[in-house]
Amino acid sequence: MAKAPEKPESVQRLIRPSVRGLHAYTPGEQPKGRRIIKLNTNENPAPPSPKVLEAVKEAVDGRLRLYPDPVASELRSRLARLYRLEPDQVIIGNGSDDLLALATRAFAEPQHASDSGAAVDRSTIQYFVPSYSLYPVLSRIHNARINEVPLKLDFSIPQGAALKKAGWNNRAAMTFITTPNAPSGRGYSNTELRKLCASLKGVVILDEAYAEFAGQNAVELIHEFPNVLVSRTFSKAYSLCFQRIGYFMGNAQLIEALDKVRDSYNVNGLGQCAAVATLKDNGYYRRNFKAIIARRKKTADELASLGFRVLPSQTNFLLVEPPSMSAEEWFAELRRRNIIVRWFSSPDISRFLRITIGSEEEMEILVENCRGIALGS
Amino acid sequence: MAKAPEKPESVQRLIRPSVRGLHAYTPGEQPKGRRIIKLNTNENPAPPSPKVLEAVKEAVDGRLRLYPDPVASELRSRLARLYRLEPDQVIIGNGSDDLLALATRAFAEPQHASDSGAAVDRSTIQYFVPSYSLYPVLSRIHNARINEVPLKLDFSIPQGAALKKAGWNNRAAMTFITTPNAPSGRGYSNTELRKLCASLKGVVILDEAYAEFAGQNAVELIHEFPNVLVSRTFSKAYSLCFQRIGYFMGNAQLIEALDKVRDSYNVNGLGQCAAVATLKDNGYYRRNFKAIIARRKKTADELASLGFRVLPSQTNFLLVEPPSMSAEEWFAELRRRNIIVRWFSSPDISRFLRITIGSEEEMEILVENCRGIALGS
Repeated sequence: MAKAPEKPESVQRLIRPSVRGLHAYTPGEQPKGRRIIKLNTNENPAPPSPKVLEAVKEAVDGRLRLYPDPVASELRSRLARLYRLEPDQVIIGNGSDDLLALATRAFAEPQHASDSGAAVDRSTIQYFVPSYSLYPVLSRIHNARINEVPLKLDFSIPQGAALKKAGWNNRAAMTFITTPNAPSGRGYSNTELRKLCASLKGVVILDEAYAEFAGQNAVELIHEFPNVLVSRTFSKAYSLCFQRIGYFMGNAQLIEALDKVRDSYNVNGLGQCAAVATLKDNGYYRRNFKAIIARRKKTADELASLGFRVLPSQTNFLLVEPPSMSAEEWFAELRRRNIIVRWFSSPDISRFLRITIGSEEEMEILVENCRGIALGS
Repeated sequence: MAKAPEKPESVQRLIRPSVRGLHAYTPGEQPKGRRIIKLNTNENPAPPSPKVLEAVKEAVDGRLRLYPDPVASELRSRLARLYRLEPDQVIIGNGSDDLLALATRAFAEPQHASDSGAAVDRSTIQYFVPSYSLYPVLSRIHNARINEVPLKLDFSIPQGAALKKAGWNNRAAMTFITTPNAPSGRGYSNTELRKLCASLKGVVILDEAYAEFAGQNAVELIHEFPNVLVSRTFSKAYSLCFQRIGYFMGNAQLIEALDKVRDSYNVNGLGQCAAVATLKDNGYYRRNFKAIIARRKKTADELASLGFRVLPSQTNFLLVEPPSMSAEEWFAELRRRNIIVRWFSSPDISRFLRITIGSEEEMEILVENCRGIALGS
């Protein structure tokens, strides 16, 4: 009765042609054990607040057998109150990556061979390069048309005619803007973002994964523009990467569209519990943001004094151009010394290293090792 | 600078036409507080094993700040060892719902107005009705062509010419088969499933969410057919609904395709930890399955003695046709008595109630109340 096992190539025909050619997103290395200083994926060096750990521990009992709240009511209400929104203007994701992916499916049409004219715009997902390296991955998974628009060499946004000349499309179905920008750390003012949002006809996602470390955030823009969504996460600022909690805020109709394409139990229960407890202990986190911002300044000054070119940062990391050797060589040398930073091979940023702001001790060891490498010792 | 807020209809144009018309999946009610007997979403009445709770509690510390293992290495290795597979034949999802959704995106083409001929098959997702009510939701989200094939009145699968006549399409891009079937509880033999798999040219997902409560499972079929994937979950049998852990097993190339379209951090860390600890304490769970199977038999006998028609079940729930009143009226009456069961409005199953096998005490209270209702007291 059973078929003979098929040859590998005949299994490939079962997979969508657009999926066959995909390359999965490469997450930053997650080393285990050993005494490694991990400054590569922008995790917060501080643990979650003791009250958050306590709340999660207390929830670990027989209730794990039950489904979590499918609409994360308590978390959404609390976030809505915090930002003076209605709960139907907030949606929770399995990390903000989940919501970024849902947005491609809710707002952009997959391409089709026969598309032309307006259909091209409806399939177009647009973003600046460099920015979050997940956008091209999500766009390709959805088989959308990609419009990558280069930032200026200092990672600022091209203005006026220069923006148009760079290929910007005001009619794109969706535009992702990482603000503050990653991987450069550069912040954009609301004045500048407002101008962009006013000219864009499609959905705009302001991806504020690092907003808590910046001088300004763009939440006010969702009150001005019905096509603007703000993306946030509990991962970085709130030390909850492990738990996968992100959220979008914005127009209730856009949020409803995301809700329709979301998995009904997309947010695990202990994650919801951790995020709710986080919002109740804001003081702990505010102190943490201040400490990281101060440490960012100190680290920037110290690296600059060693000959690094340090870009201004509004995030919990620094983009730096190291002296003497290539960034790739610096990356390898630091790796050898058990310090992992991030190096990207793409040409527009391959001369930089991205360094997460870790603990005070980690930053001291980093600077000390950078001094050693710079002095050739 | 700011645009005037747009009228509601102009926001709708930002949403894909195929998404605008969607209705979100309706999960079973998740009541909070109060003394309610919850027999509506097939959760296990037993808590996770004490060792699992201990392992999760111990993991709740500063490590929550770190990203979880993006490829769930330990969990995948353990599952592979358990089923005598290679780790690249296993993929973990944020619940099996996550993977069912990924499968639509990896294996079926979204429809396009100009499709004809073979393109129709490549867009077709096929499943029996009734079966898991999420399949039509996922198919519509993906804008696939839906082929619903009715089961026989006793929820068995039509054979030979009858299957063809019912509209079965051997060339469908993807076929979901819930086995044992939900919501009926009926089991299908591997002989029967083997015949179906041998005739299907596309990908077949054998959705075994309830396999641990059945006399047989279909894992052997993935060794015989390169187009067959088996779906499993830690939610029901392993009392971990809250933590969202499911998995697929099958041909490494199909698993790789799913991996390419998955969110890179789709599985939260405490969920991975709970699932690994679960696999280390198999004895606890085997005892639980036996107890539930025995309780299923006892409850079935008792309800039958009250005049219920009880369908044979290979799952942790019973589908029953109540006497005297309509199923909808029984549902409301039980609800009034703080017992929540599941009633589906769709015509093929609207005369039934689906009742989860709860704890011994819960089943006693259920039977007692059913007796009261049947006797009009």
